[in-house]
Amino acid sequence: MIAAYQARCQQRVDAALAELFTPPRAELHRLYQAMRYSVTNGGKRVRPLLAYAACEALGGDAGQADGAACAVELIHAYSLVHDDLPAMDDDDLRRGQPTTHKAFDEACAILAGDGLQSLAFEVLADPVRNPRDADTRLRMVGQLARAAGPAGMVGGQAIDLGSIGLKLDQAALEVMHRHKTGALIEASVCLGALASGRADEAGLADLQRYARAVGLAFQVQDDILDVESDTVTLGKRQGADIARDKPTYPALLGLARAKGYALELRDQALDALGRFGPDAEALGALARYIVERRH
Amino acid sequence: MIAAYQARCQQRVDAALAELFTPPRAELHRLYQAMRYSVTNGGKRVRPLLAYAACEALGGDAGQADGAACAVELIHAYSLVHDDLPAMDDDDLRRGQPTTHKAFDEACAILAGDGLQSLAFEVLADPVRNPRDADTRLRMVGQLARAAGPAGMVGGQAIDLGSIGLKLDQAALEVMHRHKTGALIEASVCLGALASGRADEAGLADLQRYARAVGLAFQVQDDILDVESDTVTLGKRQGADIARDKPTYPALLGLARAKGYALELRDQALDALGRFGPDAEALGALARYIVERRH
Repeated sequence: MIAAYQARCQQRVDAALAELFTPPRAELHRLYQAMRYSVTNGGKRVRPLLAYAACEALGGDAGQADGAACAVELIHAYSLVHDDLPAMDDDDLRRGQPTTHKAFDEACAILAGDGLQSLAFEVLADPVRNPRDADTRLRMVGQLARAAGPAGMVGGQAIDLGSIGLKLDQAALEVMHRHKTGALIEASVCLGALASGRADEAGLADLQRYARAVGLAFQVQDDILDVESDTVTLGKRQGADIARDKPTYPALLGLARAKGYALELRDQALDALGRFGPDAEALGALARYIVERRH
Repeated sequence: MIAAYQARCQQRVDAALAELFTPPRAELHRLYQAMRYSVTNGGKRVRPLLAYAACEALGGDAGQADGAACAVELIHAYSLVHDDLPAMDDDDLRRGQPTTHKAFDEACAILAGDGLQSLAFEVLADPVRNPRDADTRLRMVGQLARAAGPAGMVGGQAIDLGSIGLKLDQAALEVMHRHKTGALIEASVCLGALASGRADEAGLADLQRYARAVGLAFQVQDDILDVESDTVTLGKRQGADIARDKPTYPALLGLARAKGYALELRDQALDALGRFGPDAEALGALARYIVERRH
């Protein structure tokens, strides 16, 4: 079920994203090409899926969440481009393809990332593909800015870079993940919920609880896959995180306990969906998928 | 007169900016330090001044434009941090001080720039220091996103990097500048005008005409100063642009005609202020200052 839903979300957000990359003049062709390349790289579109599924869990129409879905994916794409830069993680491959600074050049990759971040906010400010209510759109802008910014995703990357070689305990590792990946996953769910136009504070709180658990589960499973998968399946070098002496859950807890923790987080996520009934089926299926996926 | 007004605007925006750089947790100390360093580097705060002056030209209160003033300066600051990176202009000095990647490190500078961009949108989405009306704030978000993004400032930097060593004609040089610096200067004026809550479309069009002329005048004068000033006054190596074979107005037009062009643009700017009367005194004084400044 989740595969079909994922394919539908992917098609939907890809169609909306595709409209953003027509260069307004010839001189900008290469920059727009680099942005398009960075966004269309075979990503699973987990964040857009979360936005659509949260919107639908509250009885909203997917069309209202197109802006939210695009915006969170644009932020995600920009973060990958910058994280892959030589001064950061220095990765040549991303999902089996050359990273943006390899396919283009470093300056172009920096600018493409910068431009993708601006586009995310431009998309949310637009009345098209978003809820009509200005207060709601503004709240979405504020939430995305906080989630993407120094107190969120960017802060998480800074913490991550500062942690290489350190012996983090589980609490410190979770602080890092809650910033680096958790904040944007939370924002994906919250923006989708807000886009429905039907979010109340209690519902948002439950969805936030869901998103926190799912975000962390995603990360724990990523660490597990880094140990277990081979390079072809993963699209990056197997064991790359461990080779860099990055802190991981399997290194910290052992593989068996890390797997148990992923399942526990999945159950926390499912538990938070209680009030939404069958409308939240996609959110539930995603929580299950995250800990079952092989890549 | 403009010096006193500038000092007042600088104090005002610096006070508002200072509140943004308290790290929410200890792990983020260095990132916030790098962001603060990038923003408090002795900049002239021309863009905040434009926002305040445009707000006041329409009879608005400066307090409504604090958010706009912060946001445009945050975008400007982030663009300098990224432009100075080794993969871009590779500058070690900015206003006589080590650039952010020199004072910290390259990864930290990339992240600080990324975080400053997010902060700009967070500031605009906040009801504090902004007009209360959500539609107006949302319009400001959209304008800033377009001005900062790939069809604006980021696009201009891409065009600039693609132009090194090429023989641009005046039209091509202006396309580059209208993107690289002009778009954000226009946005500074438009956001300030919108923040007043009293902008009509005819007034906005005149202010946009003013901003386009002022933005280009600023750039022409920068090129002139690059030829005429010494390194100490300028805070960067004298002749740095010419040494890199970057296209400049003096190289294209000759020094005397470049100076005449700067004055012509100043007059265009002053002409566009006709309807606003004495409330636009600061905008007028700035247009005059830009072509008279020595650094």
